[in-house]
Amino acid sequence: MIQKIVLVGSGNLATQLGKAFRKNGLDVVQVYSRTEKAAKALAHVLECPYTTKLDELVQCDLCVVLVKDDALETVLRQIQLETTVVHTAGSIPMELLSGYFEKFGVFYPLQTFSKQRDVDFSNIPICLEASSDEVFADLQTLGEKLSTSVQPVNSEERKVLHLAAVFTCNFVNHCYRIGDSMLEEKGLRFDLLKPLIQETAQKVMGMKPIDAQTGPAVRMDETIINKHLDLLADHSRQKAIYQLMTESIYKTQNTK
Amino acid sequence: MIQKIVLVGSGNLATQLGKAFRKNGLDVVQVYSRTEKAAKALAHVLECPYTTKLDELVQCDLCVVLVKDDALETVLRQIQLETTVVHTAGSIPMELLSGYFEKFGVFYPLQTFSKQRDVDFSNIPICLEASSDEVFADLQTLGEKLSTSVQPVNSEERKVLHLAAVFTCNFVNHCYRIGDSMLEEKGLRFDLLKPLIQETAQKVMGMKPIDAQTGPAVRMDETIINKHLDLLADHSRQKAIYQLMTESIYKTQNTK
Repeated sequence: MIQKIVLVGSGNLATQLGKAFRKNGLDVVQVYSRTEKAAKALAHVLECPYTTKLDELVQCDLCVVLVKDDALETVLRQIQLETTVVHTAGSIPMELLSGYFEKFGVFYPLQTFSKQRDVDFSNIPICLEASSDEVFADLQTLGEKLSTSVQPVNSEERKVLHLAAVFTCNFVNHCYRIGDSMLEEKGLRFDLLKPLIQETAQKVMGMKPIDAQTGPAVRMDETIINKHLDLLADHSRQKAIYQLMTESIYKTQNTK
Repeated sequence: MIQKIVLVGSGNLATQLGKAFRKNGLDVVQVYSRTEKAAKALAHVLECPYTTKLDELVQCDLCVVLVKDDALETVLRQIQLETTVVHTAGSIPMELLSGYFEKFGVFYPLQTFSKQRDVDFSNIPICLEASSDEVFADLQTLGEKLSTSVQPVNSEERKVLHLAAVFTCNFVNHCYRIGDSMLEEKGLRFDLLKPLIQETAQKVMGMKPIDAQTGPAVRMDETIINKHLDLLADHSRQKAIYQLMTESIYKTQNTK
């Protein structure tokens, strides 16, 4: 059974996952970060020891590696623990770990994390993959302490999930940002858009997105579209996004 | 005071607004649609008479015109009522009505409407503009029966609000749709994305969108981005959207 956990990394996910582990009765026994400042800050939040040296990681039941994809192999190479090691990256195959460890897996919570905002893990899909049934069972028990939605997801599926998450979270948030900047320019409050943003998300909880689509692009209403393009004349990037999305919505809706 | 209302149009907004009027004690005394079928269907929902002839509109306190932007002038020209007439279009200036009526205005609820899905009007911003203080006061009293968020918004502001709504609702929903289609191709359930979609919307209720941004585009993580572009090789439109959004997020985040 997994009880003692070491976190390698100190970013948004390390912070939120560490908090969730503690809240659910697990022991975060150490955190690692490359920089003293980041390590210390997270150790303070999680009330645990920290290190900035990978050869000083302490014994534990699970080592969770949460570093940037580019840094992953360099970090893995230096971990000497004889325990289960997992990464949390959407787009990295589990097999990368097989060169370094005997028991390994992937623990991928499908959510957006910011340091400042605590999230409720209870309904977050935790996508698991493991080197053996035994490791899978351990990770599943751990995952179920955090969430009611623990799922087996293989590396290829996880890659697609990650890409879909970029569209439905990162790109969505960028659309919010563009709306915000437009209103700001006119002295209007972003608050005006909040009920619309909530309803747009809420709608697809019970309806397929293709059926929830509204707006001028659906029917290629050129009068409105041209007015919008005029308004965007001085914002070439936003204008390009508008044109591409409009065309894509129209084609999607009219080939369904 | 406005009590008796005629609705000219039978689309999503006509349906939902008609329901909201009735629910709040107002009388929808007639609906008009160009086609008998649509007129009859809405009249059935709102339990009121209908017509397909604009010269048969009945006396009322307010006539709400909810037709497509392209059809608006043709319809306005045929309305003979001696009463207050409003349109509900985001991108059409109020002044268009001045050629046809003495008392007029705009009643623009900022929300996404589908026929099948009832919405709660109570927190929807209702954006008002009117030809006189007297008409404004009447529309305000009416709006406040439906919503706690009634706002004066002039034609230029409304046009920007409408454009921002296209980004934060229509384009957002299209991102949901792309995510859905990707998962579908792999036999994965859209349900997996729902907690992410909800959290992404919820985050900006209390945080500026620019501060809520996460994902590979923020730091231009080329390893992940190239993997995603590979996955999109056979989907040229989605690939173009990915590239444009990624570039736009990176530039926005790195010039803030």
